[in-house]
Amino acid sequence: MTSSPIVCTTVTEFQDVLAEKLSNAAEPTLGFIPTMGALHAGHQELFKTARANNAVVAISVFVNPLQFDRAEDFENYPRNLDADVAIAAEVGVDVIFAPELQEMYPDETPRISVRTGHMGEVLEGALRPGHFDGVGTVVNKLFNIVAAGAAEVRGVLPFTAYFGQKDAQQLAILSAMVEDFNLPVQIHPVPIVRDEGGLALSSRNQRLNEDQLIQARALNEGLELLAAEAAAGRPLDVAAAIDHITASVVSAPGDDVVDELVIVDADTFTPLTEEQRADPTSWPPRLLALLAAFVGPVRLIDNKILKG
Amino acid sequence: MTSSPIVCTTVTEFQDVLAEKLSNAAEPTLGFIPTMGALHAGHQELFKTARANNAVVAISVFVNPLQFDRAEDFENYPRNLDADVAIAAEVGVDVIFAPELQEMYPDETPRISVRTGHMGEVLEGALRPGHFDGVGTVVNKLFNIVAAGAAEVRGVLPFTAYFGQKDAQQLAILSAMVEDFNLPVQIHPVPIVRDEGGLALSSRNQRLNEDQLIQARALNEGLELLAAEAAAGRPLDVAAAIDHITASVVSAPGDDVVDELVIVDADTFTPLTEEQRADPTSWPPRLLALLAAFVGPVRLIDNKILKG
Repeated sequence: MTSSPIVCTTVTEFQDVLAEKLSNAAEPTLGFIPTMGALHAGHQELFKTARANNAVVAISVFVNPLQFDRAEDFENYPRNLDADVAIAAEVGVDVIFAPELQEMYPDETPRISVRTGHMGEVLEGALRPGHFDGVGTVVNKLFNIVAAGAAEVRGVLPFTAYFGQKDAQQLAILSAMVEDFNLPVQIHPVPIVRDEGGLALSSRNQRLNEDQLIQARALNEGLELLAAEAAAGRPLDVAAAIDHITASVVSAPGDDVVDELVIVDADTFTPLTEEQRADPTSWPPRLLALLAAFVGPVRLIDNKILKG
Repeated sequence: MTSSPIVCTTVTEFQDVLAEKLSNAAEPTLGFIPTMGALHAGHQELFKTARANNAVVAISVFVNPLQFDRAEDFENYPRNLDADVAIAAEVGVDVIFAPELQEMYPDETPRISVRTGHMGEVLEGALRPGHFDGVGTVVNKLFNIVAAGAAEVRGVLPFTAYFGQKDAQQLAILSAMVEDFNLPVQIHPVPIVRDEGGLALSSRNQRLNEDQLIQARALNEGLELLAAEAAAGRPLDVAAAIDHITASVVSAPGDDVVDELVIVDADTFTPLTEEQRADPTSWPPRLLALLAAFVGPVRLIDNKILKG
């Protein structure tokens, strides 16, 4: 399980290795996780979940220029394939697809791309125009590349792709893409990992001091208030949740503590109106609460499935 | 070969039938042609080409609302599945996928769709905003549906999809989509069918009188002038081609004969500048001449591959 993964840089090499690994498996099942590298313990959670459920686990490591709004951020994004291979090896990843830019985008900018529409324009998408279209475009390519490799062995499709629930908007958009594009993929959401106080794990938590780490528990507590209301079929009191968080946390001078707390239809990312929040009979099948809040100068995000 | 095709209305039924037909084939190969129904001899040319080259031939019959700019045109589009089945049966089509709207677009409008960008915005796309995005969105879905059915039998992918060269912009966009999306599809362009005078066959030709049918030969002649120049590596004299056509054809009063005659890079649909047309060393690998002209009141289109 801890032998070093095979690293492939071309599409055909990756597909051949996938097909070979799958053809040697007694029950051929494939788990896939797309990443931009800079791997850490959060990625390892996804890899472990895939490892526990599949004969073959593949990941991609590709810094996708289309999803950066600023060229500078793309250029400065950390790249260290050797370190990524070591981290993937620790949890038994079999294959790593690490293509050069040219292999993915021979013309630099693809002529045909993915439009994520409303779902990609709201919330985090409003702060980063084009970001989710870039994510959709690269993940659609990667899914098709993986599917064609997997199709060489009968019965592998649909393969399973793993995404963290922490990036709820990305997860919702990619789930919608799989449905709307009829892709041969199952999306497996991996729950948010929390510390003993309920704080969602994030590399940003390193920037909090001891007192702020305690304060930040209020983010999850606020979301739990809403979850309890939803479970009981009671109106969702967003103002009370904001009050709870605001009363517990100190933000930097001039910043509101709660930057955003919205309830959305988890399938469309359309926010519920105040009337809909107050009327449980009007709720769609799946509800999600999305939170962004400042603890000191650090903007943290968290979310919770309220229903469905 | 002339037994009646199996008609499927759901995705899973269609995929099951494809898999079964393919698994019974000695050498499993699959040809697919997406259509909007209202089938005629032009479609049959595509079906025959697919029939000659594949163990299994499937078509889709689906009037795609996304590619109509006007709801009225969508509603009035001719629908006659029985007639379509009969026409497909004549040339040995095996399977017809004829889904209801709900099966393809459960939410009416897909949340995630295909953006064809520059290639879909120019030329015919400029006259029909959103048209090529709608074509891309439905064909991407259909390709994925067919691929997942074909993947049940080892070695079928890539399957082959057939499109007429007459709709040159559609062909170029879908070829670009297959490349940019890494789809497991080979696009097979079917050449324009011409009468003995060189006129490209079109249902619109029925609206021309005998004299106009003779005049309309000048469209192909104008394109041939450009093809001869390209073959000799000489500058492309678009004005001379326009002059030839204009001297031979009578349009309706007030209309120019030649509505459009442009030379484009066949891979990107970027028009060549006058300087590029005059300088063969500047030409891209593939060149296409696109023509729209009025013969009497009838707007005809034609095109010719000049290079590549």
